[in-house]
Amino acid sequence: MTKVLIIGGGGMVGQKLLSRLLAEGLPGHETLEITLFDIGFPTSCPEEPARIAGNLTDPAKIAQLAGLRADLIYHLAAIVSGESETDFDKGWATNMMAMWHLLEALRSEHDASGGTYVPRVVFTSSIAVFGAPYPDKIGDEFLCSPQTSYGAQKAISELMLQDFSRKGFMDGMSLRLPTICVRPGKANLAASSFFSGIIREPLNGQEAVLPVPDTVRHWHASPKSAAGFLIHAATLDTARLEGRRALSLPGLSCTVAEQIEALRRAAGQKAVDLIKPQPDAAIMTIVAGWPRDFDPARATALGFKAETSFDEIVQTYIAEDLSG
Amino acid sequence: MTKVLIIGGGGMVGQKLLSRLLAEGLPGHETLEITLFDIGFPTSCPEEPARIAGNLTDPAKIAQLAGLRADLIYHLAAIVSGESETDFDKGWATNMMAMWHLLEALRSEHDASGGTYVPRVVFTSSIAVFGAPYPDKIGDEFLCSPQTSYGAQKAISELMLQDFSRKGFMDGMSLRLPTICVRPGKANLAASSFFSGIIREPLNGQEAVLPVPDTVRHWHASPKSAAGFLIHAATLDTARLEGRRALSLPGLSCTVAEQIEALRRAAGQKAVDLIKPQPDAAIMTIVAGWPRDFDPARATALGFKAETSFDEIVQTYIAEDLSG
Repeated sequence: MTKVLIIGGGGMVGQKLLSRLLAEGLPGHETLEITLFDIGFPTSCPEEPARIAGNLTDPAKIAQLAGLRADLIYHLAAIVSGESETDFDKGWATNMMAMWHLLEALRSEHDASGGTYVPRVVFTSSIAVFGAPYPDKIGDEFLCSPQTSYGAQKAISELMLQDFSRKGFMDGMSLRLPTICVRPGKANLAASSFFSGIIREPLNGQEAVLPVPDTVRHWHASPKSAAGFLIHAATLDTARLEGRRALSLPGLSCTVAEQIEALRRAAGQKAVDLIKPQPDAAIMTIVAGWPRDFDPARATALGFKAETSFDEIVQTYIAEDLSG
Repeated sequence: MTKVLIIGGGGMVGQKLLSRLLAEGLPGHETLEITLFDIGFPTSCPEEPARIAGNLTDPAKIAQLAGLRADLIYHLAAIVSGESETDFDKGWATNMMAMWHLLEALRSEHDASGGTYVPRVVFTSSIAVFGAPYPDKIGDEFLCSPQTSYGAQKAISELMLQDFSRKGFMDGMSLRLPTICVRPGKANLAASSFFSGIIREPLNGQEAVLPVPDTVRHWHASPKSAAGFLIHAATLDTARLEGRRALSLPGLSCTVAEQIEALRRAAGQKAVDLIKPQPDAAIMTIVAGWPRDFDPARATALGFKAETSFDEIVQTYIAEDLSG
């Protein structure tokens, strides 16, 4: 029996991961005992897994989570980029300090076990760890010089997890997810939210705001790919990481104009007409600092896979999440 | 009157910096009011500056230091690399968590001042932020993937200082010092201590242990250069950093064999005979993970300067620190 803890399990990616784990299991792990942790859970959340509700900044909750001694811990919880920029204290407390306390609590369990408890920890980092200016394609040896608090917090968490892993307290890995698109459900506070909104809202017959020019290029992967990355990371031989435990993942680089063309192919001009350009200087500034394209050679060689066209990404949303 | 606070002012680099500030002042700053903070001060420490003794992990001391509202803050204090590797808790508490509390305390002063207090903060980082494998020369856009706790703590501190500076709470800069050589005084707990020892001890007629093969290549600058870097950083226009506030500094790349040849030229075979090879696997492992050569184009363009031969480094030690 393999114990799996999903911190942030009530969120969109957490729920996608949960569905896959319930449907397909994990290669080499016969039975999974899954626990979800989050501040809340959607009504659509399956009944099977145990649920713990709480805030990651609560030391008692951290101790409770570490005390589960899960074999596999996914840490997906975060204050998103836009909110981390407007609420400095909340972002640092949740995205950095809670990570520190979680790692320390896991290290205590490791010590209490006589060194036998060494959980696999899979942390969702972000391409926001990078800061402009960039080369045309960001390679695996490009510096992390984030230009947002969210990016700094993610880069710091990567460094902590790498060092706690190097010391043998745990066996961790940080996955720098592309922007996840098309996100189902409602818009969130991430500055990147519109990348999903301009596809999702029109497909649902609603208007969508486009706050940036359609020449903006960005790096995407679907929620399905995100769940796939997380499943792949669970059983990857971490010796193959050779001490560099943060990975930029595969994705698809395309412009907003190319996104819109894919929408047109899937749902026609009527859908495209629902996109309303409404330039937003604050969002443009944040997005201008974001990466646009990568050469994720390491992750590709390690077997991580994503979509190769934005049409695929649109079709994934239609197949998995579009209701009615 | 410009208030200067030197955290770690009792240490070797702090004392070198102090001497220079007392002798030469700072360009554009007529009068300096200097305060030193450290756990202790050498008997040779000049009487003029105010001294505060204490541990940087003490929140009351952090508040006291921030409350000085110094215009220029040097943060040089650290648990060194070797000790951070053997005492995990002490390294993280001093090198990472104390940095966080210091930045937060300075941010409180910034807020209490109505946003007018924005100190220049110059932090001594280290080439230990990098981790092998390396290119022949490490450029300014190479990733930080440290393979020691000390390196992780320094890299994290850089990221924090950059974000607090980006938000305008302070105006910070991280200087990745080369290994400082020849350090005067006694050997310390840094794994790099021998690079100085093999020059200093023989020049003082004493035996020195060499724990690595003489083919080891490393990156050096003298204590005099270190003080020069810190003085230069005090008045540099940080807009020129364009948001990338961590700099790899100039230095000299040479092998241990080349160091020994410079010693021979300065003090003859008798001095060289005092070097006793005594391989140490633990030190070899740490040193094997360290950078050997850089292309510090940004720092050079910004006016930072170091030695261009190891003979110069030996002569600097003889002129500044060799007694009798």
